[in-house]
Amino acid sequence: MSKLSTLPPPPYWAVIFASQRTAIDEGYGDMAARMVALAAQQPGFLGVDSARGPDGLGITVSYWASEADIAAWRQHAEHQIARETGRTRWYEHYTVRVAKVERSHGRLA
Amino acid sequence: MSKLSTLPPPPYWAVIFASQRTAIDEGYGDMAARMVALAAQQPGFLGVDSARGPDGLGITVSYWASEADIAAWRQHAEHQIARETGRTRWYEHYTVRVAKVERSHGRLA
Repeated sequence: MSKLSTLPPPPYWAVIFASQRTAIDEGYGDMAARMVALAAQQPGFLGVDSARGPDGLGITVSYWASEADIAAWRQHAEHQIARETGRTRWYEHYTVRVAKVERSHGRLA
Repeated sequence: MSKLSTLPPPPYWAVIFASQRTAIDEGYGDMAARMVALAAQQPGFLGVDSARGPDGLGITVSYWASEADIAAWRQHAEHQIARETGRTRWYEHYTVRVAKVERSHGRLA
């Protein structure tokens, strides 16, 4: 069975979050799991795929129905605290890119 | 120093490739490295970030100046062979999404 997100046909929006972790592990796993669970409850959330390699470089792509849904998630109080903690503690480097998905294909079954 | 891609300001295009690996390793590492090296030589290539976790789920996001550059890279003969081999041998499941990056921020230094 596929672990990859199954999404509706485009168009929809993607938040591409790439990050390089610090050596500080304290609280990170709990926060990451909590943010995925919390995001999944937000209006317009479509799915998320995430991977992190042994070198500490990770990519998480979350998918949303609209830009407004992304903006609302950014304003979520608990998400704001997690982002601030991430910037000061867990992430050495990071990039966030907001993109409109125009086309997709693949094999999920 | 950051391992993450440094890109020009948006807009530009992203190809979000998520995949779940099979247990077949033969030839995979060489192909993956070769495709990154080859992509980097193509017109309009801006950068690539890639991560794969211990569960075999990986995400590679390549960035391009235009949709036409992405289409040209899809037509590259060696890339076509690698994709076909990937579908039959290395990837259990995969998704490809083409998206226009509208905004970005982050910390790379």
